[in-house]
Amino acid sequence: MEGSGDNSSPGFTPLVVLELASDTKEEAIQWLLNRIEDSQQNGGAELLVKQLGPGVSAEEKENPNIFLVGSSRQRLLSGAEDVGLFKEFSDGSMRAFTCANKHNFRDFKGDGDSFFSMAECQYIVKHELDTLRAKDETHVPGHSQVKLYPGKSIIRRLQSKGILIQMFPLHEKEELKRLCFSWYKKVKFTFQPLDDIRHYFGEGQAFYFGFLEYFTFALLPMALIGLPYYLFDWEDYDKYVVFAVFNLVWCTVILELWKRCSASLAYRWGTLSRKRAFEEPRPGFHGILGFNPVTGREEPLYPTAKRHLRIYLVSLPFVLLCLYMSLYVMMIYFRMEGWALSIHSEEPTFWTEILLYIPSVIYAVVIEIMNLLYRYAAEFLTEWENHRLESSYQNHLVLKVLVFNFFNCFASLFYIAFIMHDMALLRQSLATLLLTSQILNQFMEAFLPYWLQRRRNKKMIHKLKRRRTLEDKELPLEEQVRLEASMSTYLGTFDDYLEQFLLFGYVSLFSCVYPLAAVLVVLNNITEVYSDAFKMCRVFKRPFSDPAANIGVWQLAFEAMSVIAVVTNFALIGMSPQVRAYFPESETHLILWTVAIEHGLLAFKFILCFLIPDVPKYIQIKLARLEFESLEALKKKRYLHRRKCWKPRSSGKWSSEEKSSY
Amino acid sequence: MEGSGDNSSPGFTPLVVLELASDTKEEAIQWLLNRIEDSQQNGGAELLVKQLGPGVSAEEKENPNIFLVGSSRQRLLSGAEDVGLFKEFSDGSMRAFTCANKHNFRDFKGDGDSFFSMAECQYIVKHELDTLRAKDETHVPGHSQVKLYPGKSIIRRLQSKGILIQMFPLHEKEELKRLCFSWYKKVKFTFQPLDDIRHYFGEGQAFYFGFLEYFTFALLPMALIGLPYYLFDWEDYDKYVVFAVFNLVWCTVILELWKRCSASLAYRWGTLSRKRAFEEPRPGFHGILGFNPVTGREEPLYPTAKRHLRIYLVSLPFVLLCLYMSLYVMMIYFRMEGWALSIHSEEPTFWTEILLYIPSVIYAVVIEIMNLLYRYAAEFLTEWENHRLESSYQNHLVLKVLVFNFFNCFASLFYIAFIMHDMALLRQSLATLLLTSQILNQFMEAFLPYWLQRRRNKKMIHKLKRRRTLEDKELPLEEQVRLEASMSTYLGTFDDYLEQFLLFGYVSLFSCVYPLAAVLVVLNNITEVYSDAFKMCRVFKRPFSDPAANIGVWQLAFEAMSVIAVVTNFALIGMSPQVRAYFPESETHLILWTVAIEHGLLAFKFILCFLIPDVPKYIQIKLARLEFESLEALKKKRYLHRRKCWKPRSSGKWSSEEKSSY
Repeated sequence: MEGSGDNSSPGFTPLVVLELASDTKEEAIQWLLNRIEDSQQNGGAELLVKQLGPGVSAEEKENPNIFLVGSSRQRLLSGAEDVGLFKEFSDGSMRAFTCANKHNFRDFKGDGDSFFSMAECQYIVKHELDTLRAKDETHVPGHSQVKLYPGKSIIRRLQSKGILIQMFPLHEKEELKRLCFSWYKKVKFTFQPLDDIRHYFGEGQAFYFGFLEYFTFALLPMALIGLPYYLFDWEDYDKYVVFAVFNLVWCTVILELWKRCSASLAYRWGTLSRKRAFEEPRPGFHGILGFNPVTGREEPLYPTAKRHLRIYLVSLPFVLLCLYMSLYVMMIYFRMEGWALSIHSEEPTFWTEILLYIPSVIYAVVIEIMNLLYRYAAEFLTEWENHRLESSYQNHLVLKVLVFNFFNCFASLFYIAFIMHDMALLRQSLATLLLTSQILNQFMEAFLPYWLQRRRNKKMIHKLKRRRTLEDKELPLEEQVRLEASMSTYLGTFDDYLEQFLLFGYVSLFSCVYPLAAVLVVLNNITEVYSDAFKMCRVFKRPFSDPAANIGVWQLAFEAMSVIAVVTNFALIGMSPQVRAYFPESETHLILWTVAIEHGLLAFKFILCFLIPDVPKYIQIKLARLEFESLEALKKKRYLHRRKCWKPRSSGKWSSEEKSSY
Repeated sequence: MEGSGDNSSPGFTPLVVLELASDTKEEAIQWLLNRIEDSQQNGGAELLVKQLGPGVSAEEKENPNIFLVGSSRQRLLSGAEDVGLFKEFSDGSMRAFTCANKHNFRDFKGDGDSFFSMAECQYIVKHELDTLRAKDETHVPGHSQVKLYPGKSIIRRLQSKGILIQMFPLHEKEELKRLCFSWYKKVKFTFQPLDDIRHYFGEGQAFYFGFLEYFTFALLPMALIGLPYYLFDWEDYDKYVVFAVFNLVWCTVILELWKRCSASLAYRWGTLSRKRAFEEPRPGFHGILGFNPVTGREEPLYPTAKRHLRIYLVSLPFVLLCLYMSLYVMMIYFRMEGWALSIHSEEPTFWTEILLYIPSVIYAVVIEIMNLLYRYAAEFLTEWENHRLESSYQNHLVLKVLVFNFFNCFASLFYIAFIMHDMALLRQSLATLLLTSQILNQFMEAFLPYWLQRRRNKKMIHKLKRRRTLEDKELPLEEQVRLEASMSTYLGTFDDYLEQFLLFGYVSLFSCVYPLAAVLVVLNNITEVYSDAFKMCRVFKRPFSDPAANIGVWQLAFEAMSVIAVVTNFALIGMSPQVRAYFPESETHLILWTVAIEHGLLAFKFILCFLIPDVPKYIQIKLARLEFESLEALKKKRYLHRRKCWKPRSSGKWSSEEKSSY
């Protein structure tokens, strides 16, 4: 790991940036820096801190309170043990790093230089900062309104009170350049460099890109079947039964295989058997002071009953209201559709032909806008529900957003398919919705932020040029840090997964009526890889790595969608003229048979999920072996300990005649 | 714990009985006893062994190779640590027992006398015997055909080769007498003494009786609604919609609540957070010698592919064949039924009225016989599949038996309900099946073994009386052990759970057409408690306690049944004249609506399962607290260790100017 710190004091590699509010009192700053630098024995974090020098635009209004945090090598090693980092052991298995055993880890050489990747170092530093706890201070010096509770995280407190504006890890320019090149700069037909992505951005990001790639490849057979289908059988509604059956099997199988794939990745990256650390309350959590029943520490408590009231009496009705509004908008869309159709049928011209597509396009744009607005509302509401843990907050947010987005995007399609029974309209509507949302998404996600960032970047370089001659095009550290601080913050993989979830919905639910859907999604995902990669590397601040072991709640969301897909596809099959021809005498029989087979298939699907092991055999064996070894070691240790304490008789043998009152 | 060992040497309490085959070579016996008595240092079990003296009927053909195994108190303490026993800590929480901490456990007094219950002692002794491993012996001395593999369990090897006939724990007469009295001897309307049952028989048994009690109480509201229903609305088919809806909610809710109940019990008994020990291969497992990839030890291996071939090419077709035969028998039943009906309608008399019930009774008896025969076949097949682990064997056996029993018992009812649409016949058939199977079960399960045991018991006392005057009615130890050895072996809770599973099926699937079903099941379960309790205490050998944390695979089985119940009840609702009246114009609409609502309800059911936490809040908090404490302790230990190893600078403070190449 070569430091980019050529402009800083030798030996100090800046890892993480802390930006404090510009009106922070000097004594508060001094106190915080002291706590960060203080030894662990005294309850400090034992890290290194430097203030960032003034930039070239110092005379302008600019925040002077930017600090760079680094760490000594030894501190990183002990920190790695604290966070329970898994590294490759000399025998090829992944084990929790311990300082006592450090020389038995594969890449540990000398003092441990370049043993950890920069992302790991930053994660460790973040963890050490996060677990910097208040001692006997009752409030932040100089800010008497910011109370502190003994044993609670200082950084989270400062963050929720707005004193700490942001904390982010620095980019590593050389490594980033190399990553960019192998990732998206060259046009190639190879897999993404997932290990490098993980090395630079951490497991959470790598999992997203791994899933994106997997999903795109999984769509290929569907796209390959769909393409000739679409080209040659344009008006043959009957054949879609085959496609629906394929769909049904496909969406079950790919999700099961992904679980195994994901377990392999997680094992390779050492997050599979990693234990989750004890979760701290999230920064925004507030409540009345009390004692936490688990830790025994004094901290704000918020009654669960009150939260439940907020969820069921406010959030739930709000979500239902939004769903109703979405339904209302859908009805307006159908009225517009009918109006366009009536104009077209009155006097069909080229322009009226185009007019037919206008309502769908408008509706698609409105859907995207509604999703966006709802997203903000959902975040606000979930914040207001005041969840204690970040994981609980995330679950509630995901649930809210998923339900609405699903309804908003697919309600019209369900309506067309099962109430109006209009397959031509379904196809047209599906195509327009899919295309419009893809175009909008790519624009909003990548090009807009890129353009904004480019403007900022240019302004900065322009400013620099005005002051001094810029020999190389590299920015000095001070400017680089300020530039990164001004970049947008990457808000996690939520939106990216959500987009894939909706695309999965379009494909698995209705692609049998519009086989080109899979092709479109594949094309979209190929550009998505590039635009997301670009976005991560160039547009956003570097995110802290997040040691994920799977794609989390999204696995569940995709599985729920695949269940809905089975039901939908079966309903479409039941409605097809082909199947109807088998039951000419009675519609009742047709429906009963469809329902019976559908139930059987659903049962089969669940049994299949149950039977296919989630973790591949070879990993199971490796994990079992580690467990066995640790059990054996424990047994040995216990036995030795006991022998030391009890001093058994020298004969070491119990005779059956021995007196024992048991 | 007062020993019943008044007849044995002082201080030796016999805990477990080992019975070796009478033709075992003397050197094999000597070797085994040596290994059991040898110190742990030498790889022995460090237990105490005594040969059982000859009984009064010594001159008759009687096995002399019966051995009593006991243990010193200290050995039990270290054994408890080995098996990871949870005991109550001084602060009221349940923690894994460790010898180092022994004085901090609540009931630990003095040397630890009566700290463990006898069942716990026996479990520990069993574990120590089971983990007695072969060292460098290649075969059992004197039995060159019985090979041994280094590091594998000796006892399991002897068991599978038929040298060790049985190993069982002894009853404790005084405690048993007390337990019997509080459990079933007095007629009372209180709960069962679950803690005492657990104390005497272990957690597995206690869970069964806990579940039996819970299930019976859960049935009460249904029985209370069903009784007046049955009495006053005998012929009113319409009203069963209400009952079906009630059914549907009921079977979901009780299973969810049981999970919480079960977690409370498991927490109280210290098995909830207990870690499963590394599982040994089951005694009957055989294969070609190879190296276990997990332990690295030499042991028989059996290729998974071969096992899968056996499962899918032999077991699966066999099960399907059995299902077909069951279907065939069902058809014969319907022919008999038709024949009886035709006789009755030709010339209705009192006798033909009775004749109407005869086919159902015969069918019920045949079902029970088929279940029994199939059970043996399933055991044979599963044994032949050669599963390596007991848990995998159990799962395959349960799956095979469940599928067949479900089909065998309920196929005719489904046929009557959904193909014949004959509600009167359904009711009659259900009533007969239920009653007959209950009566047969009670007879086969309790009275038959009791009668056999009584005969044996009397014979023994008679024999004794012939030899000497029996002052007290207590048997001497020698006779008691021989008597217990001749008792039937209790084969686990499998059959008991299976019976409850089928009863649950009768109630949840069809009780809306025969509301008395719940009443009958409640009555059956009340007698079942008594007969099972009696059976456990008097008829069978004492079983080894089994530290279960829940009812295992049965929870899943009951949940699967509750899903089927939702579907069935909805189909019954859809078929009811009452509901049909709402859709006079079109049957299609009726079915579509029924199916739609059913899907919604199923989805709701799954969401409910997901939302209701499986472990009550207060236990979650206690567990989180233990975890938190152990994390904190680990952190402290690590920190101290590091300080010892690294000797940080005396200043204890890193200055940011310090040279560090990181």
